[in-house]
Amino acid sequence: MKVVLALALSAEALNVARNPNFAKLQGGYLFPEIGRRRSAFVAANPDKADKIISLGIGDTTKPIPEHILSGLVEGASKLGTQEGYSGYGAEQGMGDLRQRIAESCYANTNIKADEVFVSDGAKCDIARLQIMFGSGVTSAVQDPSYPVYVDTSVMFGQTGEVDANGQFNNLVYMKCPKENNFFPHLDEVPRADVYYFCSPNNPTGAVATKAQLEELVARALKDGSILVFDAAYAPFIKTPGVPTSIFEIPGAEKCAIEVNSFSKYAGFTGARLGWTVVPDALEYSDGSKVRDDFNRVMTTCFNGASNVIQSGGMACLSPEGKKEIDSLIDYYLGNAKILQGLADDLGLDYIGGDDSPYVFVDLKGHSSWDTFSTILEECQVVTIPGAGFGPGGEGFLRFSAFAPREACEEARRRISQIDIFKGQ
Amino acid sequence: MKVVLALALSAEALNVARNPNFAKLQGGYLFPEIGRRRSAFVAANPDKADKIISLGIGDTTKPIPEHILSGLVEGASKLGTQEGYSGYGAEQGMGDLRQRIAESCYANTNIKADEVFVSDGAKCDIARLQIMFGSGVTSAVQDPSYPVYVDTSVMFGQTGEVDANGQFNNLVYMKCPKENNFFPHLDEVPRADVYYFCSPNNPTGAVATKAQLEELVARALKDGSILVFDAAYAPFIKTPGVPTSIFEIPGAEKCAIEVNSFSKYAGFTGARLGWTVVPDALEYSDGSKVRDDFNRVMTTCFNGASNVIQSGGMACLSPEGKKEIDSLIDYYLGNAKILQGLADDLGLDYIGGDDSPYVFVDLKGHSSWDTFSTILEECQVVTIPGAGFGPGGEGFLRFSAFAPREACEEARRRISQIDIFKGQ
Repeated sequence: MKVVLALALSAEALNVARNPNFAKLQGGYLFPEIGRRRSAFVAANPDKADKIISLGIGDTTKPIPEHILSGLVEGASKLGTQEGYSGYGAEQGMGDLRQRIAESCYANTNIKADEVFVSDGAKCDIARLQIMFGSGVTSAVQDPSYPVYVDTSVMFGQTGEVDANGQFNNLVYMKCPKENNFFPHLDEVPRADVYYFCSPNNPTGAVATKAQLEELVARALKDGSILVFDAAYAPFIKTPGVPTSIFEIPGAEKCAIEVNSFSKYAGFTGARLGWTVVPDALEYSDGSKVRDDFNRVMTTCFNGASNVIQSGGMACLSPEGKKEIDSLIDYYLGNAKILQGLADDLGLDYIGGDDSPYVFVDLKGHSSWDTFSTILEECQVVTIPGAGFGPGGEGFLRFSAFAPREACEEARRRISQIDIFKGQ
Repeated sequence: MKVVLALALSAEALNVARNPNFAKLQGGYLFPEIGRRRSAFVAANPDKADKIISLGIGDTTKPIPEHILSGLVEGASKLGTQEGYSGYGAEQGMGDLRQRIAESCYANTNIKADEVFVSDGAKCDIARLQIMFGSGVTSAVQDPSYPVYVDTSVMFGQTGEVDANGQFNNLVYMKCPKENNFFPHLDEVPRADVYYFCSPNNPTGAVATKAQLEELVARALKDGSILVFDAAYAPFIKTPGVPTSIFEIPGAEKCAIEVNSFSKYAGFTGARLGWTVVPDALEYSDGSKVRDDFNRVMTTCFNGASNVIQSGGMACLSPEGKKEIDSLIDYYLGNAKILQGLADDLGLDYIGGDDSPYVFVDLKGHSSWDTFSTILEECQVVTIPGAGFGPGGEGFLRFSAFAPREACEEARRRISQIDIFKGQ
């Protein structure tokens, strides 16, 4: 019977081969996997469902403040009037918003409005950059790393198969060790065509210094490589002298692309708004402009960020909006202090939480998935296991400061009482 | 001096090769090219700038009606309250909206909510489908065709170089001749892994009959191929018995993916909302589910449609919203009648404008780009030359009915007076 069934099923299948790059991908995308484990816990323990606190995915929880909200509401309302209605806008974003981003976020650089491409978010832009790069480039990612750099490099055919260590052949891993403040030893990193680098870092919370960024830019220039710099958490940087854009480093406009977002900045994780800067000076080896190809991707594979949300983006970058954002960021950085305190309670080392919303805790040799499970089961707190960000994250746990204040305090109370780290 | 300059410039270029697929692409994406020609005309004739009427890009111009607007405004407003705030949602869309799309748009089919993926629009979904298919498939497109199917097939490396005729090697063109109501002679079409088919069609305005869609599904099933059916204009179908979804055809759930959009439906071209249906039953030749790979693309390369706009989508599919949409569609179909009348005035054959918002006019052998230019220069009306949609569109001009009523009437007055077709 089984054989007959199998034959019947295979007779239904298409005569189209699956994209082999998708077969290489390991399991599901990390954050949905965390959600599945949380749901499984709730299903098995329905009485504890109400107790769950999430310090997991970096998802904002504070409402959008008044002035920024008025920009969103106005953006929606005006679509109901003949004079305010707008249909397709420029795929690259509204001219006013590109200008305001250039002026507000790149004041200390040479970046101009026509180098800014407005989008529906940094994650989507990373995928669009990969469409542009195609399968012929070698990419380098930090280890540990935000999974999207790795997964898109695999999807787009830049890598080989995964090895026993969970790493992909033909993908360069820039090991970011704790003893070096999670910055790679660049002299040990082989050349790649494209280096993905995120600072303030997700997941480690490490913030690259000006000297480190200079080293990174010098390396990209020496190699003639592209540095994709993910600055989605830049507004959390409060320490004077720490660059908030890669373009503050001289020479970066000849090697870097910067990906950015309003998500963490203004509570727009669900509203969707980001941008990418591709400098005019960036040229492929044949002399063609990188910006022209990215423009082709934006016009062919995208149709512009929502006009309603772009109106909210304009409000974010007004003087009132900036004040509101500062206050949101202060709130989340206050949460980060509580989570640093939790690590102190447990007698564990950590990095992050200063100038960044993530606290990355050293589990002293404990497995990160096991610790994730223990904390979920015993404390009903969702965290993210470092191993989910690659082998270099094993032995660490990421706490997100984007939860409400009381949730961070309660999570600290609960987790500081468990004894998994006692006696170590 | 020139040589020195060239050397100096090339010394600045990166040591990264341009993605060769981008070099294959011909010129810019069509609609920005139309915009550039319009801008050039305005720059040369500033006194005529105010006179310009656009029957070009299919961009809605009527404000969003009251009830649908209230959904958008409420979606924005609630982000300002603690109880209404939401951050990241499911990348596949809000459960309620997936359910409502399944119930409203697929009532006569077996499509279920978990086969519906909500997105920021059909164009973006076509690119995401191409990410999933990868470079190893052969694709087939209608000729003439919406340019995105062709351009993404080229970008993703499925094709060879362009030939003298402007067609790409290794891309199958399904010639859609006027004498066959712009439906292909399928027995003359070589097999492809993926067939892109749009009905009501952009640009021709042709609407496939039930018998034609049955023929198409039978062909895809016989070949074991995937039929990507673009139904973005389906709500314009008013003639009883003409299917509004490919899934009304028995067997389609075993071969078809349907791409759809709220853009033309509800004036959401700028707001951005669409969806794609990937049936559970679709399996690649290795037995893996197509839906699982599309889900991986949605979770890795996308972060969900804006929560604000999804709230507007819910309002669209409420009873009040549907009435408002019917009235919007009646308005645009009324415009299409005017544009059909214009073709009659000129003594020209046309297709479209019944059950579709585009009127595709046979220029009786005149060049479509030349006619585009003549009408822009003499009448200050922007149209779209058929050749922009591929060689099969040469000799035709597309009028879009999405302009305001008075603009359609005025365009008819102006164009019916020029004499390019007289004496033919």
